[in-house]
Amino acid sequence: MKNDTKALLKRLYNGDRTATARLITLVENNLPAAEEIMEEVSKHIGKAIRVGITGPPGVGKSTLVDFFAKKLLSEGKRVGIIAIDPSSPFTGGALLGDRIRMREISCDERVFIRSMASRGRLGGLSASAVDASDILDAMGCDVVIIETVGVGQTEVEIAQVSDICILILSPESGDSVQTLKAGLMEIADIYVVNKSDREGADKLQREIEAMLEIQDEEKEKKVVLRTEAIYGKGVDELVDAVKEYFAKASAERLRSRRVRMAEYKILAILEGQMRQRMLSDGSLFKSLSEKVAEGEITAHSAARRILDKALEG
Amino acid sequence: MKNDTKALLKRLYNGDRTATARLITLVENNLPAAEEIMEEVSKHIGKAIRVGITGPPGVGKSTLVDFFAKKLLSEGKRVGIIAIDPSSPFTGGALLGDRIRMREISCDERVFIRSMASRGRLGGLSASAVDASDILDAMGCDVVIIETVGVGQTEVEIAQVSDICILILSPESGDSVQTLKAGLMEIADIYVVNKSDREGADKLQREIEAMLEIQDEEKEKKVVLRTEAIYGKGVDELVDAVKEYFAKASAERLRSRRVRMAEYKILAILEGQMRQRMLSDGSLFKSLSEKVAEGEITAHSAARRILDKALEG
Repeated sequence: MKNDTKALLKRLYNGDRTATARLITLVENNLPAAEEIMEEVSKHIGKAIRVGITGPPGVGKSTLVDFFAKKLLSEGKRVGIIAIDPSSPFTGGALLGDRIRMREISCDERVFIRSMASRGRLGGLSASAVDASDILDAMGCDVVIIETVGVGQTEVEIAQVSDICILILSPESGDSVQTLKAGLMEIADIYVVNKSDREGADKLQREIEAMLEIQDEEKEKKVVLRTEAIYGKGVDELVDAVKEYFAKASAERLRSRRVRMAEYKILAILEGQMRQRMLSDGSLFKSLSEKVAEGEITAHSAARRILDKALEG
Repeated sequence: MKNDTKALLKRLYNGDRTATARLITLVENNLPAAEEIMEEVSKHIGKAIRVGITGPPGVGKSTLVDFFAKKLLSEGKRVGIIAIDPSSPFTGGALLGDRIRMREISCDERVFIRSMASRGRLGGLSASAVDASDILDAMGCDVVIIETVGVGQTEVEIAQVSDICILILSPESGDSVQTLKAGLMEIADIYVVNKSDREGADKLQREIEAMLEIQDEEKEKKVVLRTEAIYGKGVDELVDAVKEYFAKASAERLRSRRVRMAEYKILAILEGQMRQRMLSDGSLFKSLSEKVAEGEITAHSAARRILDKALEG
C-alpha cells in the first residue's frame, strides 16, 4: 500500500472529513487500491448503526433526514449520510440535481455527507455505496444514514444494506398504499407518514396499518409514525422508535440482517467486477464464447456452466 | 417443453408475427421456459445480418431507420427492428415515451418492430435484446436492426451485439465530436451526418474524418455519409455502404465479431441471472457471506474467490 493511502487511512480513523472524502472517491473510482483499502477499513468497522431511509420522490425525505441527523447530533452522536439520487440516463448526472440540502447540519464538524448518483449499471453504484458506508463506519460515525429515492429496484436494494429501514410516505406521494410495489413495502421496519397535517394522512396511516396486519402475523409489530418534517414534528419519536427497535431486536435477528448485508455486498462487488474479469482473464469464458460463436452451444448454456462453477461450495 | 410453446416456435419459423411477439415476451419475462426456448431458437439462427444503429437523442435515428427499413423492404428483404429507449428511473417506463414511429412500415407484413425500455439494471435488458434479435433471426428476418439511444454505456454495449454498427450524429447533436465519449466513437463501422443541410454539417463531417484518420492507421477505411433522413436523402447510399462493408469484410473479421457478440451475450445472461442463482443455490456464496458477516473476511475477498472459481478453464 502506498504511503499516502496509509496516511489517509490514519486520518480516517481520527475522523478527518477530508481524508474520508478522498478515500470514498478512491474506492468509488475502483482504482486498483480499492480492495486493499477496504481490507484495511474492514478492520475498523462494526460500531455504526446503518439506517436506510427510502420513499418516493417529494415526500420530504431530505428534510426529515436533516432533522433526524440534528437530533442525533444533539445527543452527541457522529452522523454520516450517503444520499443516492437516481441518475439521468442522458447526462449521467443526478436527476434531482445537486439539491441544496442539509444546509445547516453540513457545517457541523460531526456530520459527513456524501451525494452519489446511481449509475444505471447496478453493480457500480451499489458496491460504492456499501464501501462508502463502511468507510463512514471506520471514520467513527455512530449512525450512517443511507438515503435513497425508492422508485426502482436498485434504490430499494441499497436500502437493504442497513440494520434498520425506514420508509417515508406522504398523503400526496401516491394514490394509495396498494399502488406501491410489494417489495418496497416489505423491506421497511418503521413506516413514517410525513406531511401528516395534509388531507389524506389518516387514510394513508390506516392503509399502512391494515397492510401490516396482513403481513405481520407471527412477526413483531412494525411501527407507523406521523411526522411533519418541515417543522421537525415527530422527529424525536422517530429517533426513539429506532432506539426501541434495537433494544427489542433479538441477537439472531440482527445477525441475520448482517448476513443479508454481507450477501448484498458480495453481489454488488461481483456484479461490478464480473464483466471486466471475464473479458480479461476468463479462460472458461473465452473457450465457451468460441463455442457459442460457432453455434455449438447456446449463450444460455454457456452462462449456466460458468454460474454452476461459481456456485459450487 | 409445453405443447403450446412448441406450437409458437413452429409458427415463429413460418414468420408469424403474433407468435414472434409472444415468444419475445415469454423470454423477456425470464420465465423458466426462456433457456429452453432459446435452445430451440438457436438451431434456426445465423442467417440475419444484425445492424446496430445508435446516436444521441434527437439526431433523427428513428426517421432514418424508417427509411433504411423501407429501402430494404423494396429489395424484397424481411426486416426486424428492436428499438431500445432508456427508461425513466421514476416510472420505469420508456423515457422517450411510446414514440409514434414507424407509422408506414409497421403496417407491412414483412416488418416486425419491438420497443423495449432499458431497465436500469444492465443484465435484464441486454439479455432480452440479444434474445429478441435471435428470435427475429429465427423468424426469417434478413436484417435485424437494433436501435439504441447512445447516451450510456448500456446502450453502447447493446449496439455491439451486431455485425455492423452505424453511428448517427447531427450538427445539432453536440458541440463537437471531441465531446463524444471515446467508446461511442470507436464502436461504429459507418458514420452518418444526418440533417446534413443544417449549418455545421461540413464541420461535423471534417471532425469525424479527422478523428478516423488518427484511429484508422492500418485498419480499413471507415465510411462517413451524409443524409437528410426527413426527405429520405442519402438512404440508398447508406444501404449500399452496408452491403459494401460485408462484401469487403474478411471472414476473420466477421468471425471475431461473432465471438465478441457471443461474449456479450454470455455476460448479459450472467449478469441477469447471477443474483438469483447465488441467493437460491450458491453454497460457496452462502458460506462466504457468513464469514463476511462475522468479520472474518471482507466482501471484496469473498467476491474475488467466487469470481476466481468462475474464471478457471
